[in-house]
Amino acid sequence: MSGDGVEGVDGGVPGGREAARERVRGLFAAVRAEGRAVLTATEAEQVAAAYGIPTPAQALAGDADEAVELAEGIGYPVVLKVVSPDVVHKTDAGGVVAGVTGADGVRAAHARVLAAVREHAPAARIEGVQVQRMVPGGVEVLIGAVTDPTFGKVVAFGLGGVLVEALGDLTFRLAPVTPDEAGSMLDSVRAAEVLRGVRGAAPPDRAALRELIVAVSELAADFPELAEIDLNPVFAAPDGATAADVRLLLGEPAGRTAPVHTPEEILASMRRLMEPRSVAVVGASDQPGKIGNSVLRNLVDGGFEGEIHPVNPKAGQVLDRKAYASVCDVPAEIDVAVFAIPAALVPAALEEAGRKGVPNAVLIPSGFAETGEVELQERTVEIARRHGIRLLGPNIYGYYAPWQKLCATFCTPYDVPGGVALTSQSGGIGMAVLGYARSTGTGVSAIVGLGNKSDVDEDDLLTWFAQDAHTRCVAMHIEDLKDGRAFVRAARETVRRKPVVVLKAGRTAAGSRAAGSHTGALAGDDAVYDDVLRQAGVIRAPGLHEMLEYARALPVLPAPRGENVVVITGAGGSGVLLSDALVEAGLSLMEMPDDLDAAFRALIPPFGAAGNPVDITGGEPPATYEAAIRLGLEDDRVHALVLGYWHTVVTPPMVFAELTSRVVAEARGRGIDKPVVASLAGDTEVERACAHLFENGIAAYPYTTEKPAAVLGAKYRWARAAGLLP
Amino acid sequence: MSGDGVEGVDGGVPGGREAARERVRGLFAAVRAEGRAVLTATEAEQVAAAYGIPTPAQALAGDADEAVELAEGIGYPVVLKVVSPDVVHKTDAGGVVAGVTGADGVRAAHARVLAAVREHAPAARIEGVQVQRMVPGGVEVLIGAVTDPTFGKVVAFGLGGVLVEALGDLTFRLAPVTPDEAGSMLDSVRAAEVLRGVRGAAPPDRAALRELIVAVSELAADFPELAEIDLNPVFAAPDGATAADVRLLLGEPAGRTAPVHTPEEILASMRRLMEPRSVAVVGASDQPGKIGNSVLRNLVDGGFEGEIHPVNPKAGQVLDRKAYASVCDVPAEIDVAVFAIPAALVPAALEEAGRKGVPNAVLIPSGFAETGEVELQERTVEIARRHGIRLLGPNIYGYYAPWQKLCATFCTPYDVPGGVALTSQSGGIGMAVLGYARSTGTGVSAIVGLGNKSDVDEDDLLTWFAQDAHTRCVAMHIEDLKDGRAFVRAARETVRRKPVVVLKAGRTAAGSRAAGSHTGALAGDDAVYDDVLRQAGVIRAPGLHEMLEYARALPVLPAPRGENVVVITGAGGSGVLLSDALVEAGLSLMEMPDDLDAAFRALIPPFGAAGNPVDITGGEPPATYEAAIRLGLEDDRVHALVLGYWHTVVTPPMVFAELTSRVVAEARGRGIDKPVVASLAGDTEVERACAHLFENGIAAYPYTTEKPAAVLGAKYRWARAAGLLP
Repeated sequence: MSGDGVEGVDGGVPGGREAARERVRGLFAAVRAEGRAVLTATEAEQVAAAYGIPTPAQALAGDADEAVELAEGIGYPVVLKVVSPDVVHKTDAGGVVAGVTGADGVRAAHARVLAAVREHAPAARIEGVQVQRMVPGGVEVLIGAVTDPTFGKVVAFGLGGVLVEALGDLTFRLAPVTPDEAGSMLDSVRAAEVLRGVRGAAPPDRAALRELIVAVSELAADFPELAEIDLNPVFAAPDGATAADVRLLLGEPAGRTAPVHTPEEILASMRRLMEPRSVAVVGASDQPGKIGNSVLRNLVDGGFEGEIHPVNPKAGQVLDRKAYASVCDVPAEIDVAVFAIPAALVPAALEEAGRKGVPNAVLIPSGFAETGEVELQERTVEIARRHGIRLLGPNIYGYYAPWQKLCATFCTPYDVPGGVALTSQSGGIGMAVLGYARSTGTGVSAIVGLGNKSDVDEDDLLTWFAQDAHTRCVAMHIEDLKDGRAFVRAARETVRRKPVVVLKAGRTAAGSRAAGSHTGALAGDDAVYDDVLRQAGVIRAPGLHEMLEYARALPVLPAPRGENVVVITGAGGSGVLLSDALVEAGLSLMEMPDDLDAAFRALIPPFGAAGNPVDITGGEPPATYEAAIRLGLEDDRVHALVLGYWHTVVTPPMVFAELTSRVVAEARGRGIDKPVVASLAGDTEVERACAHLFENGIAAYPYTTEKPAAVLGAKYRWARAAGLLP
Repeated sequence: MSGDGVEGVDGGVPGGREAARERVRGLFAAVRAEGRAVLTATEAEQVAAAYGIPTPAQALAGDADEAVELAEGIGYPVVLKVVSPDVVHKTDAGGVVAGVTGADGVRAAHARVLAAVREHAPAARIEGVQVQRMVPGGVEVLIGAVTDPTFGKVVAFGLGGVLVEALGDLTFRLAPVTPDEAGSMLDSVRAAEVLRGVRGAAPPDRAALRELIVAVSELAADFPELAEIDLNPVFAAPDGATAADVRLLLGEPAGRTAPVHTPEEILASMRRLMEPRSVAVVGASDQPGKIGNSVLRNLVDGGFEGEIHPVNPKAGQVLDRKAYASVCDVPAEIDVAVFAIPAALVPAALEEAGRKGVPNAVLIPSGFAETGEVELQERTVEIARRHGIRLLGPNIYGYYAPWQKLCATFCTPYDVPGGVALTSQSGGIGMAVLGYARSTGTGVSAIVGLGNKSDVDEDDLLTWFAQDAHTRCVAMHIEDLKDGRAFVRAARETVRRKPVVVLKAGRTAAGSRAAGSHTGALAGDDAVYDDVLRQAGVIRAPGLHEMLEYARALPVLPAPRGENVVVITGAGGSGVLLSDALVEAGLSLMEMPDDLDAAFRALIPPFGAAGNPVDITGGEPPATYEAAIRLGLEDDRVHALVLGYWHTVVTPPMVFAELTSRVVAEARGRGIDKPVVASLAGDTEVERACAHLFENGIAAYPYTTEKPAAVLGAKYRWARAAGLLP
């Protein structure tokens, strides 16, 4: 990955990166010494110069005469701008006059600027008026950087000017960025076309823009205390880019206090959590309805093959097993202690677990930070750190590991092993995951509750799931990230091997408010989340339903090896809707080569439509579906198939399901492994047909053309991020 | 409605509308006489003047000297533009120089324009150079009009300039528009904020823009032969708007040939189609597997209480009923003749139906235009017209009217009467409708196949459904509209009384291509469809699945009476996701009044979160859910409730479903009828709970927070369009 550290591209910085840093450090110290946070234009331009950011010739004029003198030296036309520590938005205050020519012009503009600012902000201290060479033009863009509460320093790029400000067309990346990442930003704004030249105009200098973005990102990364950088507008001409205005704002450097574990340390404790040989239940109980009873029963009934040790102050027997008064009394190593006791009792019991050397504590009880008991949670975390215990929770339903026959939870058990690992921050969402999985028969490698995330969080789990052979896809419900950078690091590493789906709650302003009141966590700006998750190669699910659908389908579908999607449909109407949905999902319908088109035409009635979609028409027998599907599978130029089935008496649903499963299995037997998805239109028999198809590795859905397209689109997004497609 | 005719706003047209029309008519005739389609700038400005469209002072210069003379008269700065019938995009050709001052400047610019155009298009005939007063500035917008293949003349508005061109931010309305509709266009572009003034600048003159849009729309409506109008850029200043460039293009006037029925005529025949007293089956057969056998059996087994008359050339008995050799032999009036015979036999049988005076023919067979047999279809339509028979189809599955116990189809029967009328152009989609309805128990007032739409189409059906007491919502799958204006008229009329949901297939370029190959119909530009359907108050479903979900839920939900939505949730995590989904669906979470907030707080644990969402927390008993829901229902300031349920042993799913159904029913009994939707997170028991809730008028969904928000959003979109909300 491109690094979170201070290494970067030094080329653009005159005198070397370290010298630049030193100059800027001195400048910031001087500003701080004056008790200021906002740099003046002159100071900001010195910082820009240190980082090789081109700005137009400029100087500060104390009065109108001096302004004329400076303007004559700089050359017309010029721009006059007020310089005041109290005026942040100069244009809004009337403090900017552009396109000024001649001595009289300068005098008039000088008077205009001062009068306007005095009216707008009578108390503002005015240090003078900046006289700046007017940049000859080009596309106006904005380059900036902010400190995001989740991800730290992020660099921003967008087209400038009032119009695009109104459209909010900005894109973000973690700072610092590589030149390649900077280049990707130019293509990520909605108005990207403008940066490739429009209506015959020469395009702006993209290399200069990339360099500028890199420089800004490095400046941001070098100085944690630099709260905001704003280059707006930058004029991007065909032969270079110039920052006409540079605004810098100092703040408090964001501190990091979370302890950092190495990947090896994380894997060592996660292995004992996810593949334990012995589990203790602290608070195990004989009394039905008690959480400690449900957890123990789920462990026993689920068939967990390791040791199970009930812990209960009364010792004796619990559910016919020997119970111990304390974990310390258990005469064996313990990999996981599941806590099913009231919150107030957790610290003392955790001390005992620490003395016993238990590496993992699963804290089911609520009554910690989420109910205002912040101090209790902090005390618990402190005990765990002292003993080197990793904590899952508190305030969770527990976790499931079906391949281990492990149900360490007080909720209903689940025992269908499979390819997807699901995590949820909220218990309610965890229950929805469970119900959906059971209803659809989704095979699961893990379901993990994260709750308050006092310690173990998404990046720990990703580190495990990335190398877990059972896990073919990870799907996570996230309300906030404690350490966005650590998540991105872990996600990038995982995405190289398997898809990561994220449902980020709190997308909207209203949503963010609710997240705040639910977890006490500060929800980050969604635009930043969106871009950074994409940068990490994560598939973002638009909602809970989609997350669950992706989680079910992605492990079933093989990875595509190219972008050519072919639709084969028995219902022309479905073909049109499938085409709509595929384009919506970012997929490309293959331009049909003539020979393949002819081959399809040979299979279908003369009034059917070849091209793509291939419309085999509604009244066809099973043999036509079979021949068309086989043709699509066997042609090397086709990379994915989308099937549209229409219920008829000639080809009933189960006949279609069985023939499709057989043809796909035959192809897979010969090493042809392409993703196949299907939309089934028909009476309720199609539901059973879809279940049959899913069991045979074909993601099939009744009464919808959108879902098959959406899951195929998600698989493609991952394949592109993982570098699997040309 | 604002009218499709030529009446409009006359105020802005100097000398009256008719005089203006006369002047423009003469001008167009002169252009036509020269064999031209594109008007010169001078001609275009004369047309603009006739319609009160302000343009800057300008004149045509034959040479550089004349250009200087004209510029001195007009006043500096000026813009020079090439005038050539062969150069359509002047800027691209280098044919425009702006900001020219002084005689030398004019000479230089004149030379530059000519040189650039000669290089760009050496063969172009150059008629001179236009010298135009440079408009002092303002926001650049575009106002235009085009002839849409589906909707005829539509007027377009968007922000101008290269940037917004790259963003494609345009909005469309049927021409002509009223000033109110024109005003709505200013708010419909993404960059609408710019038109309200940004960064302290005075906003552009919105009244002037409205007038300009109205004038352009009237010009477009007055002249069917005017293929394109382009005012780009229009400079919208705080004190007026000026069209700096006017481009007009003549084409062929679009003809209309479809016969027009009055609403009374449509209702008369539709009543006999949808509530028939007698149905004949032409091609009725004893042979299982034959379409004529399935249709007759469905009619008989479905329990249709009117007369059923088998028609078969062999006469005798069919399914133990007396059969007739011809419809003419049937000794009673026939309301509907269902044709279940091969396409080639249809014309002769239709002649007989005509002689018999049958008002409706349902043409099930395929083998008409969709298989290339265009002539056969035209002949069939001609026969029907001659006899005054309305045709449904051909190439359809038939139709269902469950309130009449009528299954006039060869597909599987359906017998759950209810509130939604569903139509589909494609048979495959019709089968998906059937399966979904059966699987979810959706109550249906009609399911109608439209197929090739040789005669009866969506606007006929809307005219019926609008006044049909059983129908509470109409949902239509549409691939093309034969007459977009007639559809809009009927939809507007219907929307005043009940929601109309449309799934428009062929949204994307790829989709449109497939539509073209499927129906041979020219699919319209989707941006125009989208705006015009919204203008008509139609709820556009993004996909098949959503159309079906809306169709199921909208008839169940009462209409909201205000915009205040309150979320009550047992799972904080669901609350966040519900908030996201509600904002996404265009809904507003109510700002909680202090007294109501206090009232909710009194019901929930101290660590629960009031505000909105109201988080009652996960461990609460049924009484807490009940009290919170009752509070939300009884407070007049709350207009809709969204419930988030979390499966616990304390409040199991069916307990929640029953208590919620009871509380809502009690409130309805006292006249409190608010829409209530619910998201249930839990194990599979929540599925049965959702079904129970749906049966009791609460749109409830398992494992999703998006669907309840989406259906509530759809109901609100309708309520706003129907003018039910303040």
